[in-house]
Amino acid sequence: MAWATGILRASKRVGAAGVDIGNLNIALRPSRVLSVPLNRAWWRVTPTSTMATVKGEFIQSFSSEKPVLRNKVSIIGTGSVGMACAISIVAKGLADELALVDSNEDKMMGETMDLQHGSVFMKMPNIVCSKDFHVTANSEVVVITAGVRQVKDETRLNLVQRNVAIFKVMIADIIKHSPRCKMIIVSNPVDILTYVTWKLSGFPKNRIIGSGCNIDTARFRYMLGERLGIHSESCHGWVLGEHGDSSVPVWSGVNIAGMPLKEVNSAIGTSRDPEQWGNVHKEVIASAYNIIKMKGYTSWAIGLSVADIAESILKNLRKTHPVSTKIKGLYGIKHEVFLSVPCILGENGISDIIKVKLSPVEEAQMVKSAETLWKIQKDIKF
Amino acid sequence: MAWATGILRASKRVGAAGVDIGNLNIALRPSRVLSVPLNRAWWRVTPTSTMATVKGEFIQSFSSEKPVLRNKVSIIGTGSVGMACAISIVAKGLADELALVDSNEDKMMGETMDLQHGSVFMKMPNIVCSKDFHVTANSEVVVITAGVRQVKDETRLNLVQRNVAIFKVMIADIIKHSPRCKMIIVSNPVDILTYVTWKLSGFPKNRIIGSGCNIDTARFRYMLGERLGIHSESCHGWVLGEHGDSSVPVWSGVNIAGMPLKEVNSAIGTSRDPEQWGNVHKEVIASAYNIIKMKGYTSWAIGLSVADIAESILKNLRKTHPVSTKIKGLYGIKHEVFLSVPCILGENGISDIIKVKLSPVEEAQMVKSAETLWKIQKDIKF
Amino acid sequence: MAWATGILRASKRVGAAGVDIGNLNIALRPSRVLSVPLNRAWWRVTPTSTMATVKGEFIQSFSSEKPVLRNKVSIIGTGSVGMACAISIVAKGLADELALVDSNEDKMMGETMDLQHGSVFMKMPNIVCSKDFHVTANSEVVVITAGVRQVKDETRLNLVQRNVAIFKVMIADIIKHSPRCKMIIVSNPVDILTYVTWKLSGFPKNRIIGSGCNIDTARFRYMLGERLGIHSESCHGWVLGEHGDSSVPVWSGVNIAGMPLKEVNSAIGTSRDPEQWGNVHKEVIASAYNIIKMKGYTSWAIGLSVADIAESILKNLRKTHPVSTKIKGLYGIKHEVFLSVPCILGENGISDIIKVKLSPVEEAQMVKSAETLWKIQKDIKF
Amino acid sequence: MAWATGILRASKRVGAAGVDIGNLNIALRPSRVLSVPLNRAWWRVTPTSTMATVKGEFIQSFSSEKPVLRNKVSIIGTGSVGMACAISIVAKGLADELALVDSNEDKMMGETMDLQHGSVFMKMPNIVCSKDFHVTANSEVVVITAGVRQVKDETRLNLVQRNVAIFKVMIADIIKHSPRCKMIIVSNPVDILTYVTWKLSGFPKNRIIGSGCNIDTARFRYMLGERLGIHSESCHGWVLGEHGDSSVPVWSGVNIAGMPLKEVNSAIGTSRDPEQWGNVHKEVIASAYNIIKMKGYTSWAIGLSVADIAESILKNLRKTHPVSTKIKGLYGIKHEVFLSVPCILGENGISDIIKVKLSPVEEAQMVKSAETLWKIQKDIKF
Repeated sequence: MAWATGILRASKRVGAAGVDIGNLNIALRPSRVLSVPLNRAWWRVTPTSTMATVKGEFIQSFSSEKPVLRNKVSIIGTGSVGMACAISIVAKGLADELALVDSNEDKMMGETMDLQHGSVFMKMPNIVCSKDFHVTANSEVVVITAGVRQVKDETRLNLVQRNVAIFKVMIADIIKHSPRCKMIIVSNPVDILTYVTWKLSGFPKNRIIGSGCNIDTARFRYMLGERLGIHSESCHGWVLGEHGDSSVPVWSGVNIAGMPLKEVNSAIGTSRDPEQWGNVHKEVIASAYNIIKMKGYTSWAIGLSVADIAESILKNLRKTHPVSTKIKGLYGIKHEVFLSVPCILGENGISDIIKVKLSPVEEAQMVKSAETLWKIQKDIKF
Repeated sequence: MAWATGILRASKRVGAAGVDIGNLNIALRPSRVLSVPLNRAWWRVTPTSTMATVKGEFIQSFSSEKPVLRNKVSIIGTGSVGMACAISIVAKGLADELALVDSNEDKMMGETMDLQHGSVFMKMPNIVCSKDFHVTANSEVVVITAGVRQVKDETRLNLVQRNVAIFKVMIADIIKHSPRCKMIIVSNPVDILTYVTWKLSGFPKNRIIGSGCNIDTARFRYMLGERLGIHSESCHGWVLGEHGDSSVPVWSGVNIAGMPLKEVNSAIGTSRDPEQWGNVHKEVIASAYNIIKMKGYTSWAIGLSVADIAESILKNLRKTHPVSTKIKGLYGIKHEVFLSVPCILGENGISDIIKVKLSPVEEAQMVKSAETLWKIQKDIKF
Repeated sequence: MAWATGILRASKRVGAAGVDIGNLNIALRPSRVLSVPLNRAWWRVTPTSTMATVKGEFIQSFSSEKPVLRNKVSIIGTGSVGMACAISIVAKGLADELALVDSNEDKMMGETMDLQHGSVFMKMPNIVCSKDFHVTANSEVVVITAGVRQVKDETRLNLVQRNVAIFKVMIADIIKHSPRCKMIIVSNPVDILTYVTWKLSGFPKNRIIGSGCNIDTARFRYMLGERLGIHSESCHGWVLGEHGDSSVPVWSGVNIAGMPLKEVNSAIGTSRDPEQWGNVHKEVIASAYNIIKMKGYTSWAIGLSVADIAESILKNLRKTHPVSTKIKGLYGIKHEVFLSVPCILGENGISDIIKVKLSPVEEAQMVKSAETLWKIQKDIKF
Repeated sequence: MAWATGILRASKRVGAAGVDIGNLNIALRPSRVLSVPLNRAWWRVTPTSTMATVKGEFIQSFSSEKPVLRNKVSIIGTGSVGMACAISIVAKGLADELALVDSNEDKMMGETMDLQHGSVFMKMPNIVCSKDFHVTANSEVVVITAGVRQVKDETRLNLVQRNVAIFKVMIADIIKHSPRCKMIIVSNPVDILTYVTWKLSGFPKNRIIGSGCNIDTARFRYMLGERLGIHSESCHGWVLGEHGDSSVPVWSGVNIAGMPLKEVNSAIGTSRDPEQWGNVHKEVIASAYNIIKMKGYTSWAIGLSVADIAESILKNLRKTHPVSTKIKGLYGIKHEVFLSVPCILGENGISDIIKVKLSPVEEAQMVKSAETLWKIQKDIKF
C-alpha cells in the first residue's frame, strides 16, 4: 500500500472545475480530467478563475474570511465497508466535508465522483479525496477501514504484524494533519488494531474508539426484535467483550420496556432454556459468516453503525454505545487490552464508561478474551 | 434468470425467528436457518409461537385487525444499483416495507440480512426478500434495476430483445401482485425499457417512469456548481431527451437565482463560447464511463436519484423531475417513444409534464433521438 | 364550539389560488381572499383554470387518475398544543396531507397560512383546514387536542361531562369521514377522555390511543439524563398509570445499558434513598405546573411526543410507547378504564401490550388510579 | 429590558440536577428549583456529585479532556418568533448546543424546560438559557429576534432609535462572548436593524445577515406553487429589496424547470397581464398582515426560514438565499444600506453575492428603498 511506503504522489481531482479548466476535453482525453487537484476544494481557496461568468460580472466575492471546517470526517479505505460508512454519513448530513483516502487511486476516485454526483440530493456537498493524507487535514473524526486481510494458514500474530506496518505510517500521517481528531477503528481484528492505534498515536484513550461490539449488539437487537415482533430500537440488550466469536451477550440486561426477559424465563441464555434464546447469540456470530458467504462481504449494517457512533461524537450526544475501549482495571483485567463495554460518547470521544455488573460466567469470558488478546499483543513489534 | 423462466421456487428466510424456531442451530447447521420463509413477515401474521416469553405471559396480543401496508417499495435486482437504491430509500425512511427480489438468491439474501442488521439505526425496520414476486404484493412503488448487459459485438436491438424476454415475465408478475403500483425503470437502455414496460404492463402512461435524465441532470448541476462555487441545489439546469450520450443540455434555462447564465455569456454552450461551458455537458457524458472504468459500475448517485423520485411519489410532493415519459405529441414527435422532459411527480406518478421551449437545435436533437429509438423499438418482438 | 352545535358553515381558503382567482385584490379587499375554499385542495381536483400559463400551453395534464392520500393526519384543535403537534409532524415530513380543524376559524386560518408559507422548507406541502370535518376525510391518524378547560370550583365530573358534549359531535364527525383511522387523544383529563372517545366511537380498542404517560416518561428520562450526564435516549425508565399527579415511576426498570440503577442503589425511589432519586419523579409532576406558571401552557414536548407516536403508527414501526389504553384485566383491574402501560404501536394502532411486573406498592397505585377514574366515569351521561 | 440596562442578574436553572441537588423539593418549594444554574451545563464541567450512583461505582469518568462546542446556536428573544426558530433548529438537529436569552426570565425558563423535555425525541439534547449573555459563549450562529415594537403614532425613526438603545448593549454582549459568530437579524424593521448590528458590532459585513426577503420569497414561491399545482421547491422566483411592503418581485426570473413564465405570458407581473399574476406579490405583502390579524403574530414560516439560513451556514452549504446584506455599490446605490439580494451562504456567512440583472422599473424600486432607508438611518444616534 502506497501510504505505508511513505511515497505520496500528488493527488488528483476528477471532474471538478472551480478554476479555469481551459481546453479540457474529457470524452477524448480523460487523462486531462485528472489534472485538477481533487483535494483542493474551491470553497476553501480564493477563486482564481478568469471567466467573466464566474468573476465579478456575475458573482461578486464578498468576504476575505476563509471558512473554517468544524465537522470534517475522513474515511481511510474506500472498500465496501469504507463506502458503506461514507453513504451512511452522507445520508445523515453529518459533516461539512468528507475526505476519502485510499492507496487504490482509481477505486477511490471512482467512488468519490459517484458520491459527488449525488450532491444535489444531500445536505453535504463537499467531498474530496486523495492518496495523500493532507486531504484529511483538520478532521474531527477519522474512520479507519483500511488494512490487510488474513491469507491462508497465516497466524493471527502475523496478520496483526502486517497491519502494524501499515498502521505505523497511516496513524502518523493522520495525527500530523488532525492532532485533535477522534479515531474510529473498524478494521479487523478490531480490538487489537484499536490497541495498536492507541499505542502508535500516543493519543489519550478517550479519542481512540473501536467499533467493536456496536455491530454485534445491533444484530443481537434485530434478532431479539424478530423473535418478539418488536422494533429493535425497543429491544434492549448488549453484546460486550471481544468483537466476533468470543463476544458476550449479557442476558441479565435483556429487557423490553425495563422488564427483564429473565423474569419471564429464568433460564434465558443458558443451555437449560426450553426456548433456546441462546440461539439468538449464535445467530449473531453466524450472521457475519453467512453474509460473507452469500454476498462476499458485509457493508450496510457496519456502515450504519459507524455513522451512529460518528453522530454521537459530532453532535456531542452523550448516548451509550458498546464500543471497544481500554478496559484495564475493569473486571480484574490487568493488561492493556481493548474490549467493548457501554461507553458514553460525546465531543471528546469516550467521556465515561458504564460499569455493567456481569455474572461470574460472563466476567470469566471477558477475562479470557483479555488474555487471548494480550497473548498476541505482547509479541507485536512496533 | 430464474424469474424469466417462470419457475419460481419457494422463497426462504434467513436469520428470522418470529415464530418458534425449535432446534435451530445456525452456527452448526446453516442450511436449517433458511427453513423459515423470509417473505412471511411476522408483523403481518398472527403470531403462532408457543414460547412463554413471547406469548401471553409477557406480550399480550391486543388486536385482531391486520396492519395494512400503505408505503411499500419493491426493488427488482440486488446488484450495486439496486442496493444503492435500497440504502438510499432506507436512509430516508420512505417506506413501511421494503421488498427485494433477485434471481441470484444468495446475493439477495446476503444483502437483505445486511440491511436488516442495521434496523436499529433506521426508521424502516421491515425488509423482506424472495425470488418469488409475491413478496412484492401491494407495493406502492416498484423500482426495476434488473436486466441483462450488452455482450461483445451485440446489436442494440438484440440486447433489447433479450431484455424483453426477461421483462415479459417480470412485468406480468409485478402487476399481478401490485395492480396499482407506479414503476420506476432504471435498467438500461432506460428509455427503450421504459417503453417496453409500458407496453407490457398495459398501465396508464402516468404510472411508468424512466429514471432517464434525472441522473444526467444531477451530474450537470454538480458540475455547474463546481465551476461556480455554489451548491448544486442552487444551480438550476436541465438535461433532457435520451439518457446518455445523446442527452440535451438546455443552456437557455441554466440559471442562478433566476438569472440566466446566458445573459452574462451569450455564447454559453456553443463552440464559440470562450469559457467552453459546453465541456460541462461533455463531462456529464464522460463521467459514467470514467466511473465505470475506475470502480467498475456506478451506484451512489443513481441510488440517491431514484430515492428522490420515489419520495416525490410516496409523499405526493408534486416536485418537477427530468424523467423519461411518453413524449409523443411534443416537439412534433409522432412515435411512441419515451424521453426525459420535466414532469410533475405525485401520488399517481407523472400527473403533468412541463412543455419547455427548446431552441431549434435542441428540438432537432430530441426528434433525432426519438427516431433513433423508434428504429429499434419498431422491430421489437413482444 | 361550533362543531358541537352541529352547525357547520362553509369553510374558507386563504391566499390559495389553484383555480382562476379573477379580480382578486387581497391588499384592498381581504374578505375576497376568503372566497376560495381552503379545504378543496387543487392537487386532488381536476384543475379548471382558464389561464394560458397554467393550462395546456405550459403545463400539460398527463393523467386522469386521481392521487390517493395514504398518510393523512388530521389535528383537531389549533391551540398551542395542536400547533406544536402540527409543526413536529411537519418537521418530520410524516404525512402526505395535514388537515387542521378548529371552531375558532380565524386562529385556524392564521395558523394554516403560517405553516403553508414554510412549505418550501419542508417535505410536506399539502396543508388544509376547515371548521367542517369533511376536510379530515380519509385520515390515517387523527390527533385530538380540542376540549374545554376546568373553570373555578368545577367538579372533575362536571368538566368531563362538558367535554363529553363536545366529543359526542366531534367523534361522530371524525369516524364518519375516516372510518379506519387511529385516534390519538391528547385533551385532558386524557385517560378519561380516551375512554370517552372509545365509548363514543365504537372503534376497536387498538385504534384509540391516549397520549397518557408518553410525555411523563419523556420528562422522567430527561431528568434522569440530567442527573447522570447521559442523553435521555440512553436513560431507560418508564412512568405508567394515570397521566399527571398519580403517575407511577417504575424504579425497578430504570436502567442504563441494561444495568438497573437499583443494583447500585437498592433504596432508589424510596424515602430511605440517601440520594433522593424520588425527587426526579416529583420534578416530573411539578414540571407541567411550573411551565404553565412560567409560559402559560406546555407545548413543545407534548407536540414532539405526539409526533413520535404518530410516526410509529404511520411507519408501522412496532416500537414500545407508554400510552393510555384499555387496561381492564391487567393488575386485577375490573373496570373499563384507560391507563398507560407499554404498548407496541404499529399500523393498526396498539397491536400488543407489554405486561410489566410491578411491585405490590406500584400495583396498588395502579388499582387506586383505576378506581378513582371509574368513580367519575360511571356517572358520565352519554 | 434587563440587558439594555447592563444590569445582569445571576442566571438560574430549572429542573436540572447534574450535580447533587440535596434537599430539593420541587412540588412544595418551586423557588428552590431555580437555585441550580441553568446556564452551567453539566456536560461541560467536571461532575462534582457525591452520589454513589453517579460517581465511580457506576459511571467511571474516562477523560480529562473537555468537549469543545463547534456548532452552537444562540437565540436572543424567546417570543413566538424566537421559539419558532428554536423548534425548527431543534427539529433539524443542527446544533450541539442551543442557548436561549431573554429578559423575561419566566417566559425564557418555561420555554427552555418545555424544549428540554422533548430531548428524548431529538438529536440535540443540550439546551440552556440565561438572562446573562455568557450563556451564549462560543456560538457559531446568533439569531436575534429581540426588540421593541412600534407604539401608536410613533415615528419609524423613533422606533429604530429605541431599538438602537437595546441593540447597543446586546450586540456588545454577544460579540464579547462569541467574537467569531455569524449573526442572523430577524427583528423588524429588519433591513435597518441589520445595518445597526453591523455598525455596532464592527464585524466584517459577511458575518451580518438580515433574514430580509427570505420569508417574502418563501411566501412568493408557495403562492406560485398554489396557482400552478407544483411544489414550491420547484417554483423558482425571487423577491428582493426591502422586506415587506416595498419588496420587489423579479418577474423576469420566475421559472419552472428553467422555463421562464414570461415566455408564456409576456405581460406577467404588469397591470396589463390578463391573468393578474401581480396579485401573487400583493398576496405576499398582505399575508403577514392577514396572519397577524388572525392569530396575533407570525411564527412558523419565519422560524423554518431562519433554520434554513442557519443550516447553510453551519453545514457550509454554499446555497443561494435572498437575505439582507450591505448593498452599497450595486444598482448605483451609494449609501450604506442593507437590502436583500441573492447571497451565497457558507461557513463564513455571506461569501459572495449574485448580481441579478433587474429591469429599469425594478432597479428604480431598489434605489428608492435604499433612499427611504438612508433617510432614517442617517439620523440614528449611536
